[in-house]
Amino acid sequence: MSHQSISSIAFVGLGAMGAPMAENLVRKQFRVTGFDMREAAREALVAAGGHAAASAKEAAEGAEALLLMVVNAAQARAVLFEAGALAALAPGATVILMATCPPGEAEAIAAEVTKTGRHFIDAPVSGGVNGARNATLTIMVGAPAESFARAKPVLDALGDKVFHVGEKAGQGATVKTVNQLLCGVHIAVAAEALSLAEKAGIDGRLLFEIMGGSAASSWMLRDRGPRMHEPDPAVASAVDIFVKDLGIVLDAGRAAKTALPLAAAAHQMFLSASGLGHGGRDDSQVVRAYRALNAKPANDA
Amino acid sequence: MSHQSISSIAFVGLGAMGAPMAENLVRKQFRVTGFDMREAAREALVAAGGHAAASAKEAAEGAEALLLMVVNAAQARAVLFEAGALAALAPGATVILMATCPPGEAEAIAAEVTKTGRHFIDAPVSGGVNGARNATLTIMVGAPAESFARAKPVLDALGDKVFHVGEKAGQGATVKTVNQLLCGVHIAVAAEALSLAEKAGIDGRLLFEIMGGSAASSWMLRDRGPRMHEPDPAVASAVDIFVKDLGIVLDAGRAAKTALPLAAAAHQMFLSASGLGHGGRDDSQVVRAYRALNAKPANDA
Repeated sequence: MSHQSISSIAFVGLGAMGAPMAENLVRKQFRVTGFDMREAAREALVAAGGHAAASAKEAAEGAEALLLMVVNAAQARAVLFEAGALAALAPGATVILMATCPPGEAEAIAAEVTKTGRHFIDAPVSGGVNGARNATLTIMVGAPAESFARAKPVLDALGDKVFHVGEKAGQGATVKTVNQLLCGVHIAVAAEALSLAEKAGIDGRLLFEIMGGSAASSWMLRDRGPRMHEPDPAVASAVDIFVKDLGIVLDAGRAAKTALPLAAAAHQMFLSASGLGHGGRDDSQVVRAYRALNAKPANDA
Repeated sequence: MSHQSISSIAFVGLGAMGAPMAENLVRKQFRVTGFDMREAAREALVAAGGHAAASAKEAAEGAEALLLMVVNAAQARAVLFEAGALAALAPGATVILMATCPPGEAEAIAAEVTKTGRHFIDAPVSGGVNGARNATLTIMVGAPAESFARAKPVLDALGDKVFHVGEKAGQGATVKTVNQLLCGVHIAVAAEALSLAEKAGIDGRLLFEIMGGSAASSWMLRDRGPRMHEPDPAVASAVDIFVKDLGIVLDAGRAAKTALPLAAAAHQMFLSASGLGHGGRDDSQVVRAYRALNAKPANDA
């Protein structure tokens, strides 16, 4: 079985990321059977040439692979172990977990999957909805080389930057965790920089124009910086996503006994923004926590 | 005088940055008279078509502009007020301070210069030695519009990204300070990310390859990241420069009563690297402070 290529895929979690990913697999001639709680999501997959199932277990029935693009590790566990999708898969099938999970969770789920004789691929992604649509995701894979080779054609249909970062489940999740550490700190420090400049009467738009073209630039500064000047920008990704993801970063640091002073400080700023009532706003609005800390003096001060 | 264009320039501080900057002014047909403590630096300027003086005061004698590319604000004060360069300048001349100084210092020096009837341009740079050589520096100017217009041809000969960030001296220094805040935090967080990944057995070179092509990227991660894997890389800029520059950032934050939690945490890491004896090493070696904090467990642990 392990040398046979994967042709039938159960896909669970047809959200903003999952839906275009499942459609990319259909386009690449995989037989995709999808499940999502929302009927509209199932219908959209069928319209795109896929198949729909009434439950995760039904989708997994006899499939050679199960791709999980759910919200978190708890949902992955529910699908695999409680809803019975794992047991429904073909013997020797491959479980591909692409949700962002704590490294320890990915490792624990892997242990339960592999003891049934199935393969497990820890394969979180970055690149957002655009990457999902254009099949240009970055995919960070922790898995034994043989399992990775088996899953590679599936991953290549979803992303153009597929990296095998280690032989162990949890190592893909670690790289994704590190990715979020960098992204979260880069957003927060852009807001911190803006905060200092505004206090000195510098125009924030000009500041980011200068910084975006210098050694001080980051991808996040160029992307999120302009949105820090809008009172309520469209939500690309919410403040509460970084409350969660930097939480995962710090949990991974605790588990590995690794001090992460910058990630810890950035987490406090996202927590504050959320606590101030802005958790659902675009993550650029972490700047509101800095404005709360560093308000300009009142005119009568 | 203020509508007459600047043709004669006294240039003090012919170091790694100053020497190529002075030569660029010569190339653009300014009459440049340079001073530096080191005779070899003076001779190099003469060989490039400039003139040399035996003191800062002699260089400034009757000049229409004095450009200061010294190490810090204390040296700028010594040249202007103690060595007598300010008084030697033509009436209505322009002092252009391009060294990295605390915003409050730039403001205080400006007050003393302008009360003699001369112009003051607070104009720190970024772009390093390559930018100085190729006249591609970023120049951040805080000065009244009239003074800025007068100095602009001189600045255009040195950089291709000349920004007028505000009417007040100290605002250029603030933008440079913010630039250093971002650069310092971006270097430190790259080291922090590496530290977490290495603990999980991830190859650091692969990690930076992945991060450098994702939303987690920064200019500093791409530039300094690879050097974090070298035991003792050539020094592009030293750890102690960021000990100083993040110190200036935090002093500016204190003066403006502005909380800068990420800059403060990053400063601690550069301080630690310096205290461990690595202050003279390349600033990528802030990673040594993280390795001291987060050493991998011994094999017998």
